[in-house]
Parts: sequence; C-alpha cells; structure tokens
Amino acid sequence: MSTIATTGTTGSTVPAYAAPAANAPLERTTIQRRAVREHDVLIEIKYAGICHSDIHQARNGWGEGIFPMVPGHEIAGVVTEVGPGVTRFAVGDRVGVGCMVDSCRECDNCKAGLQQYCTGGGAVMTYNGVGKDGEPTYGGYSTHIVVDEEFTLRIPDGLSLDVAAPLLCAGITTYSPLRHWNAGPGKKVAVVGLGGLGHMAVRFAAAMGAEVTVLSQSLKKMDDGLRLGAQHYYATSDDGTFEALAGTFDLIVSTVSAPLPLDKFLALLKADGAMANVGAPEEPVSLNLFSLLAGRKSLAGSAIGGIPETQEMLDFCAEHDLGAEIEVIPADQVNEAYERVLASDVRYRFVIDAATI
Amino acid sequence: MSTIATTGTTGSTVPAYAAPAANAPLERTTIQRRAVREHDVLIEIKYAGICHSDIHQARNGWGEGIFPMVPGHEIAGVVTEVGPGVTRFAVGDRVGVGCMVDSCRECDNCKAGLQQYCTGGGAVMTYNGVGKDGEPTYGGYSTHIVVDEEFTLRIPDGLSLDVAAPLLCAGITTYSPLRHWNAGPGKKVAVVGLGGLGHMAVRFAAAMGAEVTVLSQSLKKMDDGLRLGAQHYYATSDDGTFEALAGTFDLIVSTVSAPLPLDKFLALLKADGAMANVGAPEEPVSLNLFSLLAGRKSLAGSAIGGIPETQEMLDFCAEHDLGAEIEVIPADQVNEAYERVLASDVRYRFVIDAATI
Repeated sequence: MSTIATTGTTGSTVPAYAAPAANAPLERTTIQRRAVREHDVLIEIKYAGICHSDIHQARNGWGEGIFPMVPGHEIAGVVTEVGPGVTRFAVGDRVGVGCMVDSCRECDNCKAGLQQYCTGGGAVMTYNGVGKDGEPTYGGYSTHIVVDEEFTLRIPDGLSLDVAAPLLCAGITTYSPLRHWNAGPGKKVAVVGLGGLGHMAVRFAAAMGAEVTVLSQSLKKMDDGLRLGAQHYYATSDDGTFEALAGTFDLIVSTVSAPLPLDKFLALLKADGAMANVGAPEEPVSLNLFSLLAGRKSLAGSAIGGIPETQEMLDFCAEHDLGAEIEVIPADQVNEAYERVLASDVRYRFVIDAATI
Repeated sequence: MSTIATTGTTGSTVPAYAAPAANAPLERTTIQRRAVREHDVLIEIKYAGICHSDIHQARNGWGEGIFPMVPGHEIAGVVTEVGPGVTRFAVGDRVGVGCMVDSCRECDNCKAGLQQYCTGGGAVMTYNGVGKDGEPTYGGYSTHIVVDEEFTLRIPDGLSLDVAAPLLCAGITTYSPLRHWNAGPGKKVAVVGLGGLGHMAVRFAAAMGAEVTVLSQSLKKMDDGLRLGAQHYYATSDDGTFEALAGTFDLIVSTVSAPLPLDKFLALLKADGAMANVGAPEEPVSLNLFSLLAGRKSLAGSAIGGIPETQEMLDFCAEHDLGAEIEVIPADQVNEAYERVLASDVRYRFVIDAATI
C-alpha cells in the first residue's frame, strides 16, 4: 500500500499513467492531487476499468482533449483520509468514483439527482475536465484520487473491488436506461452489442426479470450471451433476424457506437416501444420518421446515470451478486489493452490493478 | 335530407366526389355503399373535413393509391339506419368517423384500444383501403357511409357537427400525443407548425393546462396563435429562437411534414423531454444521436389515436367548448380548396358541406 501525505494545502504528487499528447501511448508519470478539502475524501485506488471512451479521449476523438490526460472513470478503492466536513464516509470505507466528480448542484436536474444532465454548466467529468477550481481533472489510472463525498459511491460488502470498478461507468450506463424504460418481468428487452456495456446490460436486464435477447453482429459470443442471462441470441448480419423479430421488443438498448440501420431496428419494437442508445456514432444517422409514427415508438438516448441511481445500481449488484466480467492487467499493459479493446478482444472489461502503477 | 334505401343485401348508390385517377381533379360521381350489416350504422354525412393527407393520397403521394378514390376521414353526420345487432347507436344519433373503419380486433394493440397500431393486418383505413370483405373503402366526400358501430364515434351535444368533423383526424392526431406525453399544468409544450393540426394542438395543450409556445416558420400567424391559447410565439427562421429557448420544453409536438433540423429542435427540450412527430417527411431525416443522449431525450412519433381515445377527445372538446376553426365550402370548390391547403391559405380547416354533394 502506498501512503501519501495530503494534509496541508498543497496536495500530493502521485504516480499515474497518462497520455502526454493526443495519440501518444500512455506512459507512467506523476500528477498532482489536491489537498483534501472540507468535504473531500482521499481514495487509494485499487482498480480502474478501461472504458472504450478512455481510448477515444486519449486519442482526442472528440477534440478539445486536455493533455497530459490521465483516463479512467471506473474507479474502485478505499478511503484513506476524509475532510473535516465529511459525514458519509470514514477511513477504510470501500468506495467508487464514476464519470463525474462535481456539478452545479443547484439546477433542477442536479436537485433531481440527475447530475449527468446538469444545466448549470454541466457536470465536471472525472478526467479530461476542469473542476470548479479551474484545475484539470485526472482520472483513475493512478494510485490516488481526491473527490468530494457527494460524488463518491459506496461499494457494498460482498462486491469485490475489481469486478465493481467497471460498474461505475459500464454498469450505470446500462442500468439506468433499463430502469428508466421499465425492464422487468413480462418485458422483452433486446441488447444490441455484447461488449463492455452490453454484457452488463444483459446481466441487469435478466436480473430485473426481463426476457433478454442479444442482437450481435455475429453469433461468435452466443455461449457467453446465454451464460450471462440472455434467453435468445441473434445475428444482425442475418436479415432473417429482422423478419423473425419484427414487433417483438418493449425496449432495445443499443450499446454500440457504430451507425445502425435505425429503421430496421425500430421495426423490432412493439407499439409504445423505445430504443435507447447509450452509444452513438459521431456522424449523423439517417432515419425515416414514419418508423416512429407507426406504433408510437421512441428513439431515445441515455448518458450514464445520476449519483443516487449509481448507488442504487451498486446495491442492486451486491443484492444480485453481479459484477463485471473482467481481465485484470498490470498498468504497463495499458497500451496493449487499448489495442485489444479496439479489436473487441476482451471479455468484457480490462481492469488495471492500481498496485502496479 | 337525402334518403336512400339500404335494406337488403345490395347496398346503395350514393353521390360522392372522387379522384378518378392519380393527380386528376376530383369530380362528382356515384359510389356503391354496402348494405347495412348486423353491426353497421348508416350515417348521413353532414360535414367532411379536408385533411392534407387527402390531397397527398389523391395525388398518389404514397403510391399504391386505389382509384377512383373518395377521400375524407373527418366525417360528422347523423345515424339514419342501424343493423339488428347494433347496441350503441340509434337513428338520429350524432356521430363521427375518423381514419379507421375496422381492424383485426384481436391483437394486443386492438384489445388495448390502439386500433391504429393493429398488428393483425393493420387497421382498415376509411378510404384508399380494402375492407375485410375485399371491397375498397370510400371516404367522407359523400352523402352517406356505412360503418361498423365499433368504429363509430359519438359526437356530444353541444359540439356542432361542422367544427367537430376535423376533430376526427386533426383533433385526435394532436390530442393523443399530448395526453400520452402528459401535457398539463406545470408542463411547457411547444407546437411546431400552426396549420390544421397545429391549431388543434395549441387549443388542446392550453385546455389541458400546459404553457404553450408556437414554433412557426414566421410570425405571420402570431395573433391567431395567441388567440388559440399559446402564451408564446417564436419564428424558427430566426436562429435567436433556438438560443433563447434551449432546454425549455417538456414536450414538442411537431405537426409539420417538412424535414426539420432535428438536432436544433431536440436542444430545446429539457432532460427527459420528448419530441413527438405527428407529421413526417417521406425522405429520411438526419440526426446526431448525441442530441438524445445529452438529457435522456426521446424522438418519437404518434399516429392518430385509438377509438376509445377518440371518444375521450370528443368528450373533452364538448366539455371545454373546443372545435376546429373551419371554413365551410360547397363540394364543387374542393379542387380549389386543395390548392389553397397546399398554399397554407386556410385558417385552419376546410370542411365540405355534404348537402352540396
């Protein structure tokens, strides 16, 4: 266990893996973490998941990247220090941090616990963001992080920190739309794509009691899909799939960021069905609005989830004994892991062992 | 009052206005109405609204038109004969017929009263359709129509038949999404387009207690919009509108069939807001899915409404003293009226006086 001194006002220098510039490989470096403030907790990071969006941002896929960039918003660890005003956590608590570390806390969305849709300037992202103090944020590929307790989650006993880490993004991103669009008994839910997000969507939807179908490009991962909780598995490369499943689903959760033939997917919905996208291509997609009129259907989107719902999701996982399927790697394999993620060669989430940083 | 004999099995020959072929002007002719069956009512039509889709179909805009075509699915009249099995209507009752005259009645949607989304072969449309008997259906530009009582609506006392006619399509098409997406007190609703559909959407949303904004291409009809119940009126040709109204609406009901810049409109929604389209362009539209992710927004569609909700809408209109704003014309002006509809030169619905047919 690494120990750092963070008392005082200067904060601490801690090791991290960072992309020094857009498209440059990640390398070991040090970063400055702020001193623990009134409502902060200092977390010793144990595990950090690798999200596809880490790669995207490290390669400046959305532009406006802040470099050096320390990715990582799937963080699980242990509290090692708390600020004097902290009421919810104590040293030794097992905690997590997801995609956000702050928000305005005053807009209607923040008050409703939907901090991810903060209209008061937007949520402060865990990395590649700028905090209210004007300092850049650095993510979880590091040994420590300092976070306001309001954006710190409790990881329940019985949920291992390694399989919990990916829940902080991949988990909540799929849990939230499943809850919002009422996945549950009697509902037929399709999950498009069986990757880091999709495998959690399958587990959640099954645990919620829905009848789950995976729609994947091929049948390559069919055994996994069924093991994870799906009852049905279809290849979208087969046009027969779209004929066979027309008008079937109450909800489709699409976890892919490739552009889909939306009209074909919308035809798979029942009347009043919704297709919720948690991934999205950067380029515009094409859609015939008649696909929505015929059956009062909705094409929707969903982004991560709010802090209260993230806690609910973690508690749900503990209750149902769910975690991510992971491959733990040492930090010096992060660049190789990035390549494997891009090649879809991971089942289903890489998690960095922070002790190796 | 014209009287026809329909007893027996042969039905009757009645006058009508029909398009003899695609793109040909409508002309007076005669058509055959079926004999009244067990559950049928014979309706003497008093008024028939002219819907934009009448023009579209008469000109074969969607292909597959059945000619000669008698348009008209906004029908108000009086029952003049009932079949022996009819239990809901009696001679003399004031009734209406909308876009559908039959459906499978057995699928989940039909059982739920959503006949417009019938999955058992689809609803039988009031005209330009084919009944279960294999005969083409003819619409309301006629003196009489024979309809199963299950697809016949009651027009409440206190609602004049002329202003009631357009409610059977323009009314229910806008009422249904406003109800489905919970327009009401505390909700901000935008109506895109102030035409035959839009003017009803404004009246309904206002009567439901919502705060209503009209989004129209220009401010030309602003006085009307405010008189109809809108509190605000903005021109979409002014980019400042999209800045001023960002994040404002719980619900946008788009009544236009022209392609809209959807991303700009979606940015006007609050988190969890929905944009419900009741009109649609024939060509595909372009959309960036991130417009939906940012705020868990929905792009949706809605088509007319089911039979129970259509009755609810008519009762709502009587209760709130609402009808369509109409211009009554004699039947021989129908072709001229079509041109005026296409030029948006009607406030807000033409209604044919069936006595002139």
